[in-house]
Amino acid sequence: MEAFSDGVFAIAITLLILAVGIEQALGGGKLSQQLLDLWPAYVAYAVSFLTIGIMWVNHHQLFRLFARVDRPLLLLNIMLLMLIAFVPFPTRVVADHAQSPDDRQAAALLYGTTMTVTAILFFSVWYYGSRHVLRPDADPRLVSGITRSYLPGAPTYAFATIVAFFNSAASLVLFAAIALFYALSSSFFGRSE
Amino acid sequence: MEAFSDGVFAIAITLLILAVGIEQALGGGKLSQQLLDLWPAYVAYAVSFLTIGIMWVNHHQLFRLFARVDRPLLLLNIMLLMLIAFVPFPTRVVADHAQSPDDRQAAALLYGTTMTVTAILFFSVWYYGSRHVLRPDADPRLVSGITRSYLPGAPTYAFATIVAFFNSAASLVLFAAIALFYALSSSFFGRSE
Amino acid sequence: MEAFSDGVFAIAITLLILAVGIEQALGGGKLSQQLLDLWPAYVAYAVSFLTIGIMWVNHHQLFRLFARVDRPLLLLNIMLLMLIAFVPFPTRVVADHAQSPDDRQAAALLYGTTMTVTAILFFSVWYYGSRHVLRPDADPRLVSGITRSYLPGAPTYAFATIVAFFNSAASLVLFAAIALFYALSSSFFGRSE
Amino acid sequence: MEAFSDGVFAIAITLLILAVGIEQALGGGKLSQQLLDLWPAYVAYAVSFLTIGIMWVNHHQLFRLFARVDRPLLLLNIMLLMLIAFVPFPTRVVADHAQSPDDRQAAALLYGTTMTVTAILFFSVWYYGSRHVLRPDADPRLVSGITRSYLPGAPTYAFATIVAFFNSAASLVLFAAIALFYALSSSFFGRSE
Repeated sequence: MEAFSDGVFAIAITLLILAVGIEQALGGGKLSQQLLDLWPAYVAYAVSFLTIGIMWVNHHQLFRLFARVDRPLLLLNIMLLMLIAFVPFPTRVVADHAQSPDDRQAAALLYGTTMTVTAILFFSVWYYGSRHVLRPDADPRLVSGITRSYLPGAPTYAFATIVAFFNSAASLVLFAAIALFYALSSSFFGRSE
Repeated sequence: MEAFSDGVFAIAITLLILAVGIEQALGGGKLSQQLLDLWPAYVAYAVSFLTIGIMWVNHHQLFRLFARVDRPLLLLNIMLLMLIAFVPFPTRVVADHAQSPDDRQAAALLYGTTMTVTAILFFSVWYYGSRHVLRPDADPRLVSGITRSYLPGAPTYAFATIVAFFNSAASLVLFAAIALFYALSSSFFGRSE
Repeated sequence: MEAFSDGVFAIAITLLILAVGIEQALGGGKLSQQLLDLWPAYVAYAVSFLTIGIMWVNHHQLFRLFARVDRPLLLLNIMLLMLIAFVPFPTRVVADHAQSPDDRQAAALLYGTTMTVTAILFFSVWYYGSRHVLRPDADPRLVSGITRSYLPGAPTYAFATIVAFFNSAASLVLFAAIALFYALSSSFFGRSE
Repeated sequence: MEAFSDGVFAIAITLLILAVGIEQALGGGKLSQQLLDLWPAYVAYAVSFLTIGIMWVNHHQLFRLFARVDRPLLLLNIMLLMLIAFVPFPTRVVADHAQSPDDRQAAALLYGTTMTVTAILFFSVWYYGSRHVLRPDADPRLVSGITRSYLPGAPTYAFATIVAFFNSAASLVLFAAIALFYALSSSFFGRSE
């Protein structure tokens, strides 16, 4: 299962570049201006890349704590990968509409809903796995530490999604802040592997 | 052969997102309405993702029962991968035409034919392999159990395809039901690995 | 190097589906007619998939006979992968123009040149590797047998390419025949692994 | 981390073919002329393929010298992969605008900036890793030799980028020359592995 999960993570993250708007750059007008106008695409690309990258690292850590993979865990993991592989689509929608006052809200809601469901599935994979297929020698403090650190993920994304109903620009900034926070906290305050 | 098969499965499943209609979302009109109108694309994406995901899991199980890979098995497997890698195309055709009364039938026939041929090749890989390159220590009851459980696949898809001649919407619903049935039955009633 | 080569083969082969003309199917007109008119795309997809698939299997066999990978072999292999990853482009050009009397020749020349250069690089990888980094325990008869069986590849493709100057349709049929011949001969007359 | 990095390298390099301009070939006019006019796309494809391929080989060598991967190294590596996966985009922009006097400068600056940042991150991964997670048995002369050989990378790309302000065609030729130099020097003068 690891080889397959690795593949889906690696491919989804690399397909993000198609979401930057490789086709738009072919439109008319001065190229230098077009490339600068693509800045929301660059930010969206970086935020989604960081988010999938961190999830992949954590996903790897989880499965090392599992003794085996049973059928319900397999199904939960396929559903999680289905969401991961879906991320390029909302990333592109945000990249294309972040500067449009009319459509930014719909884009933020799509992105936020995708991320919230992804976080719920991620937690479900861990929660089910830690109850049913945990390695007997797994350190209980490590296990409850992981549970505590993953618990806020889905509510945080849900909150940032709801913010879009009031201020869609603030919602997008929050998504970027969440990705940065996870990247930096896991990097500077996390334990080394 | 496993590394290559894994790669093709992982890439085909992740390319499905390109089949959701990432380009169509760029058309004119209100974004929120466009995103809602894409619902057949979301369903088609989920059904094909689930189907390929389950096939991958089963494919992995089969090859663990084979002692080696000879040339005819290699050729059968390449033909199976050729069909798996083809799935994003009919998925997109269904996603684009599921709501068109004129073209839904052609889309359902394309999807159903692809799935029927895939199921025939999947069974052929197993049937050939279980006759010629089975591991000597493979449990005969497990082997005949797998044969029995894969046998109905191709006829079931063929039946759902033929239904498209009479009612193409019913045919599409059947394809989704088959995928759900396999996902749930293997999850709740299957043996754990 | 194997992991990287495997990845490039698997991705190039799966990207072929984008060459079938997934976008064209979105054009106007009756869907069933459009899907039938795509038949050259289906044939081009199958021929290129088979060709890359067989090359991958053979590539794997070669590297198992090499004791190590030195720098010139690395560079030759990267150049071979560069050609393999290029194949989706001529495949699409053939798929799009096989029915156009004016452009079929240019398409056949592009496809044939790509395949001829690929075959030359494939033979070069083997020839260099078998002279410089062969495993000491490699069976000399196996080694000279492989050299003999790969030698006709490039001239055969070059001949089929030159045929395009006189009859471009015959040239395309030859490319399909070469792929089929390799698939069947390696399957029915080859040694098992 | 290796499996994931391998995946991203392999996918990014294979997606380059989408950058060759697979869509443009579908435009009107004589196919043979169109295919010849695509020559900047072929050159851009070859240069980027070579560059990513060489980076991948070197990346592999570095990580074999690291005893483990800690969190800061993980973050640096994800940022490096983010740049590698981005390369298909500037490659396409260069391929599309290399013949346009107005837009060539912007294309060269985008390509050069991407490569300079990539080289900085590549050196940072090595520099951080060689200070903090080096294997105790790593040969000090090998380590300082690698540091010396990677040090000129970023300044060289920065120089070629700055050249674009004065002569954008010369800048593009320099990018190709750098790739060729690395490929040939590592091939003919490098140590064998």
